[in-house]
Amino acid sequence: MNPASWLDVPADSMFGLANLPYGVFTTADRSARTGVAIGNYVLDVAAATGDTVHATGSMNAFLARGPDGWAALRERITDWFADERWRPAVEPHLIPRADVTLQLPIEVADYVDFYSSQHHAENLGRLFRPGNPPLTPNWRHVPIGYHGRAGTVRVSGTPVVRPQGQRKSPAESAPTFGPSKRLDIEAEVGFVVGLPSELSQPVPVSAFDQHVFGVCLVNDWSARDLQAWEYVPLGPFLGKSFLTSISPWIVPLAALEAARVSPPVREPEPLPYLRDGAPWALDITLEVFVNGTLVSRPPFAGMYWTGAQQLAHLTVNGANVRTGDLYASGAISGPNRNERGSLIELSWNGTDPVELSDGSRRTFLEDGDEVTITATAPGPGGARIGFGEVIGRIYPALSDSR
Amino acid sequence: MNPASWLDVPADSMFGLANLPYGVFTTADRSARTGVAIGNYVLDVAAATGDTVHATGSMNAFLARGPDGWAALRERITDWFADERWRPAVEPHLIPRADVTLQLPIEVADYVDFYSSQHHAENLGRLFRPGNPPLTPNWRHVPIGYHGRAGTVRVSGTPVVRPQGQRKSPAESAPTFGPSKRLDIEAEVGFVVGLPSELSQPVPVSAFDQHVFGVCLVNDWSARDLQAWEYVPLGPFLGKSFLTSISPWIVPLAALEAARVSPPVREPEPLPYLRDGAPWALDITLEVFVNGTLVSRPPFAGMYWTGAQQLAHLTVNGANVRTGDLYASGAISGPNRNERGSLIELSWNGTDPVELSDGSRRTFLEDGDEVTITATAPGPGGARIGFGEVIGRIYPALSDSR
Repeated sequence: MNPASWLDVPADSMFGLANLPYGVFTTADRSARTGVAIGNYVLDVAAATGDTVHATGSMNAFLARGPDGWAALRERITDWFADERWRPAVEPHLIPRADVTLQLPIEVADYVDFYSSQHHAENLGRLFRPGNPPLTPNWRHVPIGYHGRAGTVRVSGTPVVRPQGQRKSPAESAPTFGPSKRLDIEAEVGFVVGLPSELSQPVPVSAFDQHVFGVCLVNDWSARDLQAWEYVPLGPFLGKSFLTSISPWIVPLAALEAARVSPPVREPEPLPYLRDGAPWALDITLEVFVNGTLVSRPPFAGMYWTGAQQLAHLTVNGANVRTGDLYASGAISGPNRNERGSLIELSWNGTDPVELSDGSRRTFLEDGDEVTITATAPGPGGARIGFGEVIGRIYPALSDSR
Repeated sequence: MNPASWLDVPADSMFGLANLPYGVFTTADRSARTGVAIGNYVLDVAAATGDTVHATGSMNAFLARGPDGWAALRERITDWFADERWRPAVEPHLIPRADVTLQLPIEVADYVDFYSSQHHAENLGRLFRPGNPPLTPNWRHVPIGYHGRAGTVRVSGTPVVRPQGQRKSPAESAPTFGPSKRLDIEAEVGFVVGLPSELSQPVPVSAFDQHVFGVCLVNDWSARDLQAWEYVPLGPFLGKSFLTSISPWIVPLAALEAARVSPPVREPEPLPYLRDGAPWALDITLEVFVNGTLVSRPPFAGMYWTGAQQLAHLTVNGANVRTGDLYASGAISGPNRNERGSLIELSWNGTDPVELSDGSRRTFLEDGDEVTITATAPGPGGARIGFGEVIGRIYPALSDSR
């Protein structure tokens, strides 16, 4: 149950007082500004606080203030809604959520995508490198990751234009060019960096919550045919870089205290710089819908590497992080078929289609399909923490419409 | 020979009127602003033009104006120095180059590193994947590349702190952690994007000079031991992300007309979206010095894929480019040993050390070493176009000094 408020927040709301996620919104008469979701409303934080840092059209300047600044504002907003005396001052700055347009909440600095689900990595290994061990020898030692394209990270709802590129099946002697025939999703959780670090100064596992502000949902759209042809030896490039969609609401780590769980046992034990301090596995359950049919419920709690380990790894060589850095978990897959975080896994490389509620079947995405990823996590006192949703609809490749 | 000027520009200056490269500088009493190098001076463009776009501390706002804006300013500055009548107005805004501190000239949006030298790719293939064909099957079809870390692109002179990380030799059963023992360079040319493009709208080969403003030198520092252990299956990550150094001067494409040459014959013929229009191979010769000894002269003219093809490739899937995007060529190696663009090639994986003029030998870089990369290209009428230099000195890993 959420803490009580003078605002009419449904007792089971996933955007209750225990959550208070941040986003950036516009309305017909308000320029882009920071808002906090509460119940069925958005609080105009720029107007309510009078602090121009929230009127910049991106959360970055606020994020750069660091954990003390984040905690102070969270406490202030919590007080506002818990105490009736604040009602006259706060209520005028509430806007029905239905009336706002949500924007990309952050200016993305660097975008890194990890590969930290053991079941996902094993499934992809079996499909992309048949005949070899599913996990590469480094996987249990190194939180494998790569840099993605920050400039194509967009907010939920951005049209997904089917990418074109080179692809070559093993049976073909040369590549051909055209629209991807194997357009896929990856259901992921993303971490948003607030406080930057210095070049050549690694961030230890223990400093995770000093630098990371919060969490969003990520759909790392993937063109499997482009990816398969290009990825040796330097990794995914055009197979991923056409678009990455994120949810508009950033859930603060502060809202996820009740969701913290112990990560799985790692064998062999990681090197010292990767050893867990306080546990930072998070019991977030995602749901993936294709055209309204629930096709998967990926469990984030079981990820092999946590966000704290990922941050320690990506800075251990001296790389700094910046405000607005986004790093994502990689596709999240559990051990069961209905927990897989991508269609290539769900359909086992197209050999075992997924059935939708209208009776149609999918291996990969078709033009007109709409994918929605949502998630929830336990909050304090039985409340549920919601993450909103990241949605994308598939549009035909440009060549098809020319 | 450079065009004549009232300014005392040595006839053989590589920063003559034919060049006019842009950078960002500070002095004791001037905040970061855009400058143009000419002879032994820097023109304070912000002061000379009175245009505040040049006083922002980064070239990005000027770059975003696009090719008409770039051409107009180049023409204006050329006139200023060719015509004595401008002397009284312009001369007060010249500062001796020795008196300025050069800064990172652009805010880097996305950073992509290609792998477009056939000799480099073949050498690395032989060293990293012995027993297999040196070029992967996709290499002659796809301009192979990957995203690097934009947040660790720094200006020439930034200290190179030896990175730490995981590495495992084939003889070891498990990885160990510590300072890289195989710290290397990659001598590259980088392209700086000015005019952005739209999501889902590929940039054709023919639009290269509409979007790309100019060229800089890049040293893509590489920890070969970290890279070898981590790079399968998602590509280089910590082996590269600790630092990428660029030269402070961006040479406009407009200064490189005389350097344009035909690229090598490609066999098989590339797919249509990659076919050359006007030739965009560039006859730039790099020089790599280690502690003052010239160790290599990598020839850029022979690169398999040009900057125009790289741009067409990286956007063909619908990815957009942004002002400040930087994409680099990959290490440049010619067919001869003294044309190789990395130490792992020059020393053949450490088996054949490079001898320096002080009689010492190098396989990989030692603490205290200083690496300088310079380059020149032909200009109009026999003039030479200089690129300045990108320098880095190696400092001990943090653990060594703790």
